[in-house]
Amino acid sequence: MSITETPIRLPIPPLPRGFRVAGAHAGLKRNPTREDVALVLSDRPAAAAGVYTTNLVFAAPVAFDRARTPGTGFRAIAVNSGNANACTGARGLADSAAMAAAAAATLGVPGDSVLVLSTGIIGEFLPLEKIKAGIALVAGRLGGDADAVVTAARGMLTTDTRPKLAGSSFSAGGTPHTLFGMAKGAAMVGPRMATMLGVILTDAALAPADAQRLLGEATERTFNCVSVDGHTSTNDTVLLLANGAAGAPPLAGGDLEAFAAALHAACETLAREIADDGEGATHLIRVEVSGCRTRDEARLIARAVADSPLVKTAIHGADPNWGRIVSAAGYAGVPFDPDRLVLRLNGTLLFEHGQPVAFDAGKVSASIKAARETLVELDLHAGPASIRFHSSDLTAEYVHLNADYHT
Amino acid sequence: MSITETPIRLPIPPLPRGFRVAGAHAGLKRNPTREDVALVLSDRPAAAAGVYTTNLVFAAPVAFDRARTPGTGFRAIAVNSGNANACTGARGLADSAAMAAAAAATLGVPGDSVLVLSTGIIGEFLPLEKIKAGIALVAGRLGGDADAVVTAARGMLTTDTRPKLAGSSFSAGGTPHTLFGMAKGAAMVGPRMATMLGVILTDAALAPADAQRLLGEATERTFNCVSVDGHTSTNDTVLLLANGAAGAPPLAGGDLEAFAAALHAACETLAREIADDGEGATHLIRVEVSGCRTRDEARLIARAVADSPLVKTAIHGADPNWGRIVSAAGYAGVPFDPDRLVLRLNGTLLFEHGQPVAFDAGKVSASIKAARETLVELDLHAGPASIRFHSSDLTAEYVHLNADYHT
Repeated sequence: MSITETPIRLPIPPLPRGFRVAGAHAGLKRNPTREDVALVLSDRPAAAAGVYTTNLVFAAPVAFDRARTPGTGFRAIAVNSGNANACTGARGLADSAAMAAAAAATLGVPGDSVLVLSTGIIGEFLPLEKIKAGIALVAGRLGGDADAVVTAARGMLTTDTRPKLAGSSFSAGGTPHTLFGMAKGAAMVGPRMATMLGVILTDAALAPADAQRLLGEATERTFNCVSVDGHTSTNDTVLLLANGAAGAPPLAGGDLEAFAAALHAACETLAREIADDGEGATHLIRVEVSGCRTRDEARLIARAVADSPLVKTAIHGADPNWGRIVSAAGYAGVPFDPDRLVLRLNGTLLFEHGQPVAFDAGKVSASIKAARETLVELDLHAGPASIRFHSSDLTAEYVHLNADYHT
Repeated sequence: MSITETPIRLPIPPLPRGFRVAGAHAGLKRNPTREDVALVLSDRPAAAAGVYTTNLVFAAPVAFDRARTPGTGFRAIAVNSGNANACTGARGLADSAAMAAAAAATLGVPGDSVLVLSTGIIGEFLPLEKIKAGIALVAGRLGGDADAVVTAARGMLTTDTRPKLAGSSFSAGGTPHTLFGMAKGAAMVGPRMATMLGVILTDAALAPADAQRLLGEATERTFNCVSVDGHTSTNDTVLLLANGAAGAPPLAGGDLEAFAAALHAACETLAREIADDGEGATHLIRVEVSGCRTRDEARLIARAVADSPLVKTAIHGADPNWGRIVSAAGYAGVPFDPDRLVLRLNGTLLFEHGQPVAFDAGKVSASIKAARETLVELDLHAGPASIRFHSSDLTAEYVHLNADYHT
């Protein structure tokens, strides 16, 4: 399988103080131009939080990190792509521990201060010697410049066509702070979990419990509202490291809120990037569901629409086939009155009062063709709750990529 | 959109006594070689039962039939394809009633003795004049020979590549009986409902309550265990007419069981045909989940596997990518112990004890390529419940068909 790479769309964000990163090719991927090992190093102990897949079949690195977060004293994250270390039993758990130990030894940090991330093929054992060699290579390249950041972000990709990066800044305690995020997505991306691999770094000082709570809240509203194919992965993980290098005391009160806003913004950017770079995608689909009795009901409706292959192919075909959207809402499992449902596509009213509405189909079709993003708005007029959900269209390229992956 | 037709795979089953059918082209479909109106006529009043979509957004013909079944005194079913009469509000309800009334007038049967079925595009009003003309045309062609049966079955198709027909016979009260079924499927086929249009005819005499109960049970085990794309339609309906023309008294006791077995067999054949003829499908996927605590849990697991685009593309690519199957089971929402899960693909053991199993990937891949049907067997080893589920693979052709349908 060959991936056609696409350019990074956003400015490369700066790393927070006290962090260095890099990535390199270590031979896990066949293509020697594709990085497959990456490291994140903090020059001082950091608080760490993590959110993980809800899949019962979870990978060894998920088990490894979940047992250690939230907590303090973390110095590094070791990442590999090309192999998920999932469905690998007791040997897989030992391999994740060995990968962390190798990174700790190479970086000269405590053995229990390293977290691990793996993504790629399920059901094969980690090629530990290649990973160890890769870690040694990457350790010699650690830095904070754009090249280091991009190679690190590329080191976590699988079928993504580009790295996903996000940055934001905020002021807390009168001190400027920086927040940085990188993620991978592409496929096996479904909601009900973190949906992908993500690393969030900040030079703020955070109590581990605050870090965990705020990461969970941001994930719930961003990464858990993304679906490419509805398939929940075995490896989904988002890690947050907060090393306090900005020099301010641990955040509290309004400062925590400023951090939460910056965190949400970065996670939202990464989540949109994941949907936008869904395997084979030609459109980013933003589903806005409002007027629901509860947020959970809004999520069910949004997810049914976002996951429907018929909705996804209609948008790929620039077809304002609103019947597919309305009928997807109808089978979401949420009671509502179809006569009160209002549907807009790219701002044009398509359905209300339970009946078709006269609209210019050619104009709506042209609006779908003209933009990468398609906006689907559903209002149930039944309550105050709403949700934003991101998805991608379904293309023949998705089928080609996934019918040929592996063998 | 052009459909490449494929031959009917099974012998054309005989109609039960007392029934005549036919179909014709009336101009709802653009292609003049594709029938789009059909009639079923019983020469005497029949008991009728129906099962319908669970979609909140249900079509006018569903509302019409659901209000009338189960019941007695039915003489005919009027069918059109090319237009679903869904999301058409009060006018849609009036149109379904007008379609039934037109059929009754043309056939000379009581006005309240006709049921209706519609399938096709959502959100456009029925072209009533075309349908009335079609009904008049079909009424002159009613018969019981193979040509009449095939044109009737073709009159309910949309993107299906061939009619789906099934027949069985059984003895009750010492009298031989016949059961006949025809169905359409292709897309917008997801579980949690009847998944399609289906008509079952029998010359048995049945109490309406028995007909309803047995049709519900058969549907639950057959049509509700089929998924092409997981999208629950607005129009799904299965109707059963029992006209008693065999001359035996209303079935009871062991005779009802004989009928139930024949009904199950016919519904199973039609359900398999629907999955096998899923839009763009190159493989029929049979998912057998066993060892569950309850049948509902088995259904959740089977559905997650059957609906996963990653599983469906892997099978399209003849790729024994068992990680996708195991991980789909893991997010189904059913608690189980992954270490006790056993997966077989086309009879070959791929996963047990939570770890990969050594197997000949080339041989398994060759077995997928060699047959239309791929068998996925998952045993949870947690209880006595099991389920059989049918799905189809996901191909680029599915995307092409659905990106271009409508506009």
